[in-house]
Amino acid sequence: MPVAAALAWIDALVATLGSEDVLLDEGAGRVLAEAVVASSDLPATDRAAIDGVAVRADQTAGASAYNPLPFPSVAPGAALPAGGGALVGIGDKLPGGADAVVPLEHVEQRPAGFDVIEGIAAGSGVERRASHWARGDTLLAAGRRLLPWELGLLAAAGIARVRVVRRPRIRCLMVARRDRGSGAALEAPPCDTNGPLLRALIGRDGGFVTEQIPVDRTRASIREALKASSADLIISVGGTGSGADDDAAAALGEAGDIAAHGIALSPGETAGLGRLASGVPVFLLPGMPVACLWAYEFFAGRALRRLAGRNPDLPFQTRRLTTAAKIVSTIGTTEICPVRRLDEQQVVPIASFVAAGLGAALRADGFVIVAAGSEGYPKGASVIVHLRDDSDLSPIHQARGSVS
Amino acid sequence: MPVAAALAWIDALVATLGSEDVLLDEGAGRVLAEAVVASSDLPATDRAAIDGVAVRADQTAGASAYNPLPFPSVAPGAALPAGGGALVGIGDKLPGGADAVVPLEHVEQRPAGFDVIEGIAAGSGVERRASHWARGDTLLAAGRRLLPWELGLLAAAGIARVRVVRRPRIRCLMVARRDRGSGAALEAPPCDTNGPLLRALIGRDGGFVTEQIPVDRTRASIREALKASSADLIISVGGTGSGADDDAAAALGEAGDIAAHGIALSPGETAGLGRLASGVPVFLLPGMPVACLWAYEFFAGRALRRLAGRNPDLPFQTRRLTTAAKIVSTIGTTEICPVRRLDEQQVVPIASFVAAGLGAALRADGFVIVAAGSEGYPKGASVIVHLRDDSDLSPIHQARGSVS
Repeated sequence: MPVAAALAWIDALVATLGSEDVLLDEGAGRVLAEAVVASSDLPATDRAAIDGVAVRADQTAGASAYNPLPFPSVAPGAALPAGGGALVGIGDKLPGGADAVVPLEHVEQRPAGFDVIEGIAAGSGVERRASHWARGDTLLAAGRRLLPWELGLLAAAGIARVRVVRRPRIRCLMVARRDRGSGAALEAPPCDTNGPLLRALIGRDGGFVTEQIPVDRTRASIREALKASSADLIISVGGTGSGADDDAAAALGEAGDIAAHGIALSPGETAGLGRLASGVPVFLLPGMPVACLWAYEFFAGRALRRLAGRNPDLPFQTRRLTTAAKIVSTIGTTEICPVRRLDEQQVVPIASFVAAGLGAALRADGFVIVAAGSEGYPKGASVIVHLRDDSDLSPIHQARGSVS
Repeated sequence: MPVAAALAWIDALVATLGSEDVLLDEGAGRVLAEAVVASSDLPATDRAAIDGVAVRADQTAGASAYNPLPFPSVAPGAALPAGGGALVGIGDKLPGGADAVVPLEHVEQRPAGFDVIEGIAAGSGVERRASHWARGDTLLAAGRRLLPWELGLLAAAGIARVRVVRRPRIRCLMVARRDRGSGAALEAPPCDTNGPLLRALIGRDGGFVTEQIPVDRTRASIREALKASSADLIISVGGTGSGADDDAAAALGEAGDIAAHGIALSPGETAGLGRLASGVPVFLLPGMPVACLWAYEFFAGRALRRLAGRNPDLPFQTRRLTTAAKIVSTIGTTEICPVRRLDEQQVVPIASFVAAGLGAALRADGFVIVAAGSEGYPKGASVIVHLRDDSDLSPIHQARGSVS
């Protein structure tokens, strides 16, 4: 199956999960299941935007250091007569009748009031009712992933709980070969690697692993483990190859429907996908860690990100850069080619995942995805690089030059 | 104090915290306190890279469908005589004497062995010892923030715990004005907003809030709350203005040293910074939520990111875009101007934080930071835009075109 067909199968089958309420403090990173609409104006009344003296602006006309105008002090909360002044702090409701706040540096305080030494325009120093937002305004649209500071915005709108997409529950079956001699279950190194790898990737994509259980590498064991699964998505790792005991695909065929076994992605060729009779999607990932990684990123991760209501595409920043050496790829397979960065503009291919395994993932700064129909790129070609880690490659340091 | 001087003060005073060990599963997003070095080769021996039959490659010379060569089966684990073959699965240790693995599609299985129908080169189908990495290789450098999939790499290297920078402990003092009439402590809306806002931002930057406590808006109360603080960093919110009860700066002056009160940042002008006698840095943030937000992002957040060993710069992706309208800013103040995106290349300024408060943060797609020495940018100028949320603005969708 071509990669594009596998992605289309996922997109057709997998939709966003239902929703749940969470406390605002637990909302960061969650996806809004419905729009958040303001239930009141902010501010609810005109209020002071600065510390100062609330006045009627027209009464300050002509005030200057040479012509200080007296404003008798009015008690807090009382309505302001023409010519009166009331001391207010930032955020205080403006007294009735006031339409401006004179900053303290333009005021001299007297025992019974204030001398204003500079005229002021109506509206100055005032935050108007509904200037942040009005009742009925959509504050955040459904489908948005909540940013940290949006929690503050929602708190300001008096919101204590938000309705968000439920977190996908994932069951991981770690298919392990028994030792051929003793028959004892084998904790093969790929399992040790793939377990932490998948837990971390699933967490990044907004899901959580409800169970990660070893399963004997027999068709019956895998089939029964699949059937017993209650989850939003099932991932089975290992037993996807062409060996005598590679029974994961056959087991899925017996437990449900297999849509594909063998996908034209490298690494990841032996991946499979399908679903149980209940409709729960099942992804068969290769046991080799780099193949497990990429089959997850392309397929299982895409389904998970769709369940979670997130952008389903690969969760990497990309940059258009130039390759300083030829990138070679096999026609017919979508190939993930690790590259290193030479400088701000150029990358070079490094030893492939097939040759260097996890070492390629470690040494790469990014990845070029060469489409199935392409043989690669010549030296000097412009390529889209998926950045392994954007934090140290972002142009944020350049931007800092402007912060002063 | 100019923004640049405040940043320099922070950079001179605040260094990365000490370290702690965490389990691999808790390592995602943490910063490595020391380099991770491989303690063994991976793979530790030559091993099968595919499912197939391990052979000596030179014995397959001349094999073809018309000239199948017989390889008597050798028991698993035994050394391989010239001309023998052993069935192996991906990841199996190569039997002694073998130097290649013939894929199953080039093998016909017989009761007592295998017929090989295609010749193979030495090394084919084999993962060489140390081809991923060799003992002593640095797998990840100190200071790296651990990506999810790097946890898999570390697991493959047999690592169960990693030494990471300790998470900064933050104490937040929420300075609240008592009601002038009753004297009852006032839970003003800015406090309700700033609490959730700061907890979310501090979490994003790798810290955690050990305490978030209301403090009476009096000099003595704030001073005593500052003195009683045991934390890596203290944030006090509110009481930073020029009003009669704006005593946060005076209180810090009594509890320790105040380095600046009033920083040329808009929003955020009334922010202050200093430290206790113990050396713990203290940030005084304005109570107005947008000013609190930006004074956090520029100053307190920078200190926190430094404590956590992260990139201290503003944690936003940036893009160089064109402004489709004039951006106006005041000379002498570093001003944060909210902008909206018109299309892939252009932004326009929208109502400022002063005019639209939190509404500006909600409606903006990004922010242009205009340096203190600049009056802004003319229409058509190239500007660096800090993106509020990169997830839906990244060029990842374009890149998807190449994934097929």
